[in-house]
Amino acid sequence: MLSSQLPTINILKQPTSANWVEQAISNLDTILLDHAQCERKAAGVALNLIFRYPSNARMVRELTKIAREELEHFEQVNQWLERRNIPMRPLTPPPYGAGLKAQIRPQESDRFLDSLLVSGLIEARSHERLGLLATHCPEPELARFYAGLMASEARHFGTYWVLADTYFDREIVKHRLDELAVIESELLANLHPEPRIHS
Amino acid sequence: MLSSQLPTINILKQPTSANWVEQAISNLDTILLDHAQCERKAAGVALNLIFRYPSNARMVRELTKIAREELEHFEQVNQWLERRNIPMRPLTPPPYGAGLKAQIRPQESDRFLDSLLVSGLIEARSHERLGLLATHCPEPELARFYAGLMASEARHFGTYWVLADTYFDREIVKHRLDELAVIESELLANLHPEPRIHS
Repeated sequence: MLSSQLPTINILKQPTSANWVEQAISNLDTILLDHAQCERKAAGVALNLIFRYPSNARMVRELTKIAREELEHFEQVNQWLERRNIPMRPLTPPPYGAGLKAQIRPQESDRFLDSLLVSGLIEARSHERLGLLATHCPEPELARFYAGLMASEARHFGTYWVLADTYFDREIVKHRLDELAVIESELLANLHPEPRIHS
Repeated sequence: MLSSQLPTINILKQPTSANWVEQAISNLDTILLDHAQCERKAAGVALNLIFRYPSNARMVRELTKIAREELEHFEQVNQWLERRNIPMRPLTPPPYGAGLKAQIRPQESDRFLDSLLVSGLIEARSHERLGLLATHCPEPELARFYAGLMASEARHFGTYWVLADTYFDREIVKHRLDELAVIESELLANLHPEPRIHS
């Protein structure tokens, strides 16, 4: 239903493989731990954009909302960790985030556009994968939790898209998003051996 | 009333001068702009601590709450900026924050203790100064806004204190807080020429 409300989520070039679903479902505790880190990082990325481009009032307004929501989710995931007695511990990140970050061109205003689009793509992928967890998770309460979160991720993708479209020419945005989306799918083509939201 | 509930806020070694109040009241728009930056930075500092010490569950829980609240305040201050048609723009920070940060000792676990205490001191000073704005601001609605925020800053100081007290021996915490508080007041001894929350 959600994906028909937000057809733009179809930006992902390749769907997630069944292998990832299997890996994730077999390692739900690790996935929860990594998910907490993803929410914290997403809040941090939004705050960094606010810090770097403080004069873009609309962006500041929208990304503040996103950062607040990510922190709320971070809190909720941490409550799940506590409830399941999973001690918090650092996890090595999969290569996905660094691989996408490496695509951000250093000169402005390319850097601004790429930052918005990379964040948007990560949200789009998170939407897809939380949706898969919602569908395949054998624990009904946890599955419902994922289903609740996936809606936000889709909205966040929409926000990043709209912001890119606010500050840049639409044709340029579409072209660059397309290029980045190809790389995003390539980065996930081989399943990372450690279970992660973006393995 | 609040300060009697939280007597520890008396940690500040020197009260803010009348000069600061005069400078701030004469430059309310700039103070609002700088205040927005302070709230964003405070959220960022809390997130960085969560990132650096992810295994300290209590700290993660408390600092997530703080970060969420700071972002809510950031949003509220930005709404004030919009209402007053103050365009968002970057401001050079006063030397206060960097001066305090320079006091954070690099080795662990000193670094962790100092980070908590420096954040606590900044919150304590913000509490005092927002209280002064609440008292002296000639615009009643804005004065009420400051009065509402000052309560949070006091609570945040309390949280940082309790966290330091959770992870470190109380005598060590008191001694180090005392040392840092002396430096904090010294950093504000001469009014910074540009109006800022911590000028």
